[in-house]
Amino acid sequence: MRPADELRAAVETYLGSLPLHPELGALEDVLHYSLGSGGKRIRPVLCLAVAEAAGAAVERALPGACAIELVHTFSLVHDDLPAMDDDDERRGRPSAHVAFGEGAAILAGDALLAEAFRLALTYESTAIAAELADATLGMIAGQYRDIGVAPGDLEELHRLKTARLFVAAVRVGLEVAAVPAAERGEWLRFGDAVGLLFQTVDDLLDGDGYVEQMGRAATEKLAGAAALRAREALAGTAVDAGVLSGLVDALAVRTG
Amino acid sequence: MRPADELRAAVETYLGSLPLHPELGALEDVLHYSLGSGGKRIRPVLCLAVAEAAGAAVERALPGACAIELVHTFSLVHDDLPAMDDDDERRGRPSAHVAFGEGAAILAGDALLAEAFRLALTYESTAIAAELADATLGMIAGQYRDIGVAPGDLEELHRLKTARLFVAAVRVGLEVAAVPAAERGEWLRFGDAVGLLFQTVDDLLDGDGYVEQMGRAATEKLAGAAALRAREALAGTAVDAGVLSGLVDALAVRTG
Repeated sequence: MRPADELRAAVETYLGSLPLHPELGALEDVLHYSLGSGGKRIRPVLCLAVAEAAGAAVERALPGACAIELVHTFSLVHDDLPAMDDDDERRGRPSAHVAFGEGAAILAGDALLAEAFRLALTYESTAIAAELADATLGMIAGQYRDIGVAPGDLEELHRLKTARLFVAAVRVGLEVAAVPAAERGEWLRFGDAVGLLFQTVDDLLDGDGYVEQMGRAATEKLAGAAALRAREALAGTAVDAGVLSGLVDALAVRTG
Repeated sequence: MRPADELRAAVETYLGSLPLHPELGALEDVLHYSLGSGGKRIRPVLCLAVAEAAGAAVERALPGACAIELVHTFSLVHDDLPAMDDDDERRGRPSAHVAFGEGAAILAGDALLAEAFRLALTYESTAIAAELADATLGMIAGQYRDIGVAPGDLEELHRLKTARLFVAAVRVGLEVAAVPAAERGEWLRFGDAVGLLFQTVDDLLDGDGYVEQMGRAATEKLAGAAALRAREALAGTAVDAGVLSGLVDALAVRTG
């Protein structure tokens, strides 16, 4: 099993040399700018670690893992737009619409989503692209609740907006490793728990979401319970999940 | 061969009862509003007519044909945004961002694109979804040239922004009908010519594009040549293409 740092490096290399559609022209710069903003690549690393733990070669999982990162990046580019969260900065740099203009950012987000499918469609089966479409629509449904047009339950909002892509990362990893449907139960519970863990820790760091709704102590408790559920689910998968266990630890204590 | 009006009715029925992602919630209204704006459905009708002329059942081609219409609709919703063409009306009704707000329109466009892939992925093979991804990226590349950030040759702009989805309609029809690659040459020439015919007539109606660049007479000549090339290519396919021939006639003399 490769350590998480090696998996992250594999993702960076793959994304850095990703052959984008040959006719994008200068729009390619906006895509590369957005993809190269130095995130932690948690979703694709999770996908690669699941695939490897379940018996697949990391290389075989890279297109699927990076397709998820493209969907995540598309969502950030559109989320930052003035009509959405109106964020001028993303990870310490001007957001795409500040650096390249609003029209270019809209089109770059669109192109990132289409490129994600192009990547997911390099597999022989339609299953990985279909999971990506389903997860993308769930995530968009969560973003719609988040912009306040139809505010719903906070837990549902998070399950859709944030956790859905974590679940997709796990599912794509299982699909690449051809894990039979009957053996996926614990893995999917693991994906759900990791998604909730990520979101609760995020809210603790930002002081919003769950923290606003239920207070810091209760959110810490929720995060602890999610981490425990993730570890228990991992133990139930009966594979050597050392790297994944380390990922859970890192998510539980992350500070940014 | 079913007449074009019947094909159009089949598209309307299919789009009207399209099962969207169950978690979209109220965002579904924005998608239905945008999809139900009463366009002429030229792209999906072309796709169905090609599929039927090449030997496939219309029903089998409907998901692919409507996936193309979803991509077209997504592009209109985003094109109308203030940061893009800033159009307040679309076919006599308020555009999506005027009716539902800009954030909802951005997300609805995103969701339409993801739904297009969900639909294209109902086929067993990845080929139709892959063609959709390629055409979508070509179209986005054309939109980027159109917003003036990287203005290129007008012909290239049109080939990408407009004609690319017409070519996709033909290709998806051929794919559904399982036409061997070696027999697609005349069909693809037909698709190119129909795309150019549509655009030149559009410019004649709007008095922009080619008309601005080369004048009305030269644009009429270009449109006539495109219609001729489309008919010649059809004749070369050696199928009963009566309905398609009628579509070319209708495109050549359309007035809106």
